Amino acid sequence: MTLDAVLARIDADLPQAIARLQDLLRIPSISTDPAYAKDCARAADWLAADLGALGFDASARPTPGHPMVVAHGGTGARHLLFYGHYDVQPVDPLELWDRDPFDPVVQDTPKGPVIRGRGTSDDKGQLMTFVEACRAWKAVHGSLPGRLTIFLEGEEESGSPSLIPFMEENRAELTADLAMICDTGLYEDRVPAISSMLRGLCKAEFTIKAAKRDLHSGAYGGLARNPLHVMASLLAGLHDATGAVTVPGFYDDVAELSDALRSQWQALAFDHAAYLGEVGLSVPAGEQDRTPLEMIWSRPTAEVNGMWGGYNGAGFKTVLPSEAHAKVSFRLVSRQDPAKVLTAFRAWAEAQIPADCQILWHDEIGGSPASIMDLSNPAFELARAALAEEWGVPAAFTGEGGSIPIAGYFKTILGMDAMLIGFAKDDDQIHSPNEKYDVSSFHKGIRSWARVLARLA
Amino acid sequence: MTLDAVLARIDADLPQAIARLQDLLRIPSISTDPAYAKDCARAADWLAADLGALGFDASARPTPGHPMVVAHGGTGARHLLFYGHYDVQPVDPLELWDRDPFDPVVQDTPKGPVIRGRGTSDDKGQLMTFVEACRAWKAVHGSLPGRLTIFLEGEEESGSPSLIPFMEENRAELTADLAMICDTGLYEDRVPAISSMLRGLCKAEFTIKAAKRDLHSGAYGGLARNPLHVMASLLAGLHDATGAVTVPGFYDDVAELSDALRSQWQALAFDHAAYLGEVGLSVPAGEQDRTPLEMIWSRPTAEVNGMWGGYNGAGFKTVLPSEAHAKVSFRLVSRQDPAKVLTAFRAWAEAQIPADCQILWHDEIGGSPASIMDLSNPAFELARAALAEEWGVPAAFTGEGGSIPIAGYFKTILGMDAMLIGFAKDDDQIHSPNEKYDVSSFHKGIRSWARVLARLA
Repeated sequence: MTLDAVLARIDADLPQAIARLQDLLRIPSISTDPAYAKDCARAADWLAADLGALGFDASARPTPGHPMVVAHGGTGARHLLFYGHYDVQPVDPLELWDRDPFDPVVQDTPKGPVIRGRGTSDDKGQLMTFVEACRAWKAVHGSLPGRLTIFLEGEEESGSPSLIPFMEENRAELTADLAMICDTGLYEDRVPAISSMLRGLCKAEFTIKAAKRDLHSGAYGGLARNPLHVMASLLAGLHDATGAVTVPGFYDDVAELSDALRSQWQALAFDHAAYLGEVGLSVPAGEQDRTPLEMIWSRPTAEVNGMWGGYNGAGFKTVLPSEAHAKVSFRLVSRQDPAKVLTAFRAWAEAQIPADCQILWHDEIGGSPASIMDLSNPAFELARAALAEEWGVPAAFTGEGGSIPIAGYFKTILGMDAMLIGFAKDDDQIHSPNEKYDVSSFHKGIRSWARVLARLA
Repeated sequence: MTLDAVLARIDADLPQAIARLQDLLRIPSISTDPAYAKDCARAADWLAADLGALGFDASARPTPGHPMVVAHGGTGARHLLFYGHYDVQPVDPLELWDRDPFDPVVQDTPKGPVIRGRGTSDDKGQLMTFVEACRAWKAVHGSLPGRLTIFLEGEEESGSPSLIPFMEENRAELTADLAMICDTGLYEDRVPAISSMLRGLCKAEFTIKAAKRDLHSGAYGGLARNPLHVMASLLAGLHDATGAVTVPGFYDDVAELSDALRSQWQALAFDHAAYLGEVGLSVPAGEQDRTPLEMIWSRPTAEVNGMWGGYNGAGFKTVLPSEAHAKVSFRLVSRQDPAKVLTAFRAWAEAQIPADCQILWHDEIGGSPASIMDLSNPAFELARAALAEEWGVPAAFTGEGGSIPIAGYFKTILGMDAMLIGFAKDDDQIHSPNEKYDVSSFHKGIRSWARVLARLA
């Protein structure tokens, strides 16, 4: 069977695949620091050359920032686009690294061998799982496993300033039937996962104004309106006793989980005690009639991210301040519309403000709706089956509590769903010193893509 | 009648009294700035010399900070101590002054002539009303109007670091039958007032801790406890819908107003609309079953003076912070005990904290109880009658919303009540550029003390 031959080739070629990844890792492609701009270009060139050697029509394409690598190759009925990013996070504080972050080595650990270095997990190691799967396929079959576009960004760790313009300018070239993204992780380090719903986000910042200047609490305390009290009451009323958000209409566009997803999630047996315990907590504090996984994956939230007013220095100032401030964000799910949610929140807040107070609304940075993958697309079940085969446990369509902007852009700009499959582990220390990627993640990741591509492309 | 002769003398001597005050005002005795330490000493020497010339046994007494002026003189059954302070506030921003703050002049204004300069109202002009009353008395009678001690501080505007030790070390010398303080104002610029109840103060600062580190609202939002929500709920619950403080037992030691004070205060016809309107407010926001004057004079308060947590910089950080902070202060009345109030507040807060949260209490600077003068001491009614005679309107026993520490120290350290009588007006701009003192305040202030001393001493 041809897939078996590809898998065997992957197994045999693992040392060389690791060596190639080490070559890429040695290039310090830190996108946020202009001092490393040439290294970013070098990483892009390295990848374009490697993909070219695999038969892709590949090039590093200039942008106002770091280059995009775009590669096209293969033939097939379904056009698949793969996305990854070759840039990495800065390495400071350097003194907390056990070794040079850009001199990657394989180290043995109690949990097995790992590749240690900046970018191993985020995202060079992950993106190379896909490239190595293509390489093995090509070696066995003499051709790529289907009609593929590979699209690698060099600014993911610095806000992706060039991404949207580049996608808009190259819409036809980049539009495929499905996008695949390798920048996520296994579920609890063991269960292969396809992220199928990513929460959206919208934000509100506002000031409650009362008196026209700060007041002395001796002269005015007990008589004048204190905007800190007004703010506290407003924010305290944002949730009811069951943990539900009280803004009218907030849940109107929130769908219930499908029975299929509900049973998949039950099967995951989420260990919320361990998840919360790791950060010193124990009790799920959200909607009391929801499971912990729903709380972070499929339910919308209202969270105060900042709240301030009055005196916060050392000692005391017995002031009734003239203003109180807050930043509140909403994680969105299903078909919740960011603008509609913000409008409802504003109306809810305005309706409660007492006499002598007014709310000044600050401009919010545009919100994003949730990304909900269309699981009726048969590609998703095919990929899930392929992953289950490789990992020996049922794969799951999981949620992501946070947004992953690229998935939203593929949908809104290019009109295609994204399938997020990744092999990172919770202890990979991405963005931190001593980042690593398990050799098993790398090896089984390559094998996973070979299996997925065999079914999809 | 001898009082009439003293009053006539005061009237005739007014230009010379203003000239003497100007001499004192020219000394830039800014206590908080070490650069002016010699000027503070010079002001103390000036006062000691002036009091000596009136027949007082007067001296500037060294302290670790600026000197205290202590003067004893006269004879009589009732020993009266007069307190004032000769130090002044800094003058910056200097560019907002219309003229040199230490070159005082008399200026005509639409409301009448004023003496313009730093310290005119706070407190050199006020303290000299008492000194000039003694001078006129001495000129007419050849002796002081009674057994007097004059006690003038030079650190009032810089936290009075030497005051308590000096009072404790000179307890016998400074203890009199009654203290008189001239550092307050007329009621609504027209009604002579004796401050008979001053609210006390106690303070609580605390942190609510939840997770052991800041959390990402994507990964944890909706599941993890957000201490900003806990803080908002706690502070929102500090008052009920009627504006009353909800801490159990908070009002236990709060006495109702006497009928006499209630009717005096009703007669004052407090224009709360104007008082609030001046700072852009309109509605009394405290206990809804209390009058506005009660709210600021005779009722205790709980006010949040600072509240902060999470991200408050530009833009957004979708963080669930690990901590939330607040500073809360309580204005105390009647026999409320600061320690008891703080203990009750702590217990109230601890009882509401949900799972996974704890409150970390910070050290508070010691609180102070309210100062309630013993109005059954006949000196108070005598002084009230004397003031009514001078000003042509009934004088009132008023409250002070804020504490005046010296009044408390006289009570707690020296065991004597204080009678606070002052002639400042609301537009005197104390602590601000272009400070002034009405010539009428100065003139009628001197006459007021002559009348009060005639009855008391």
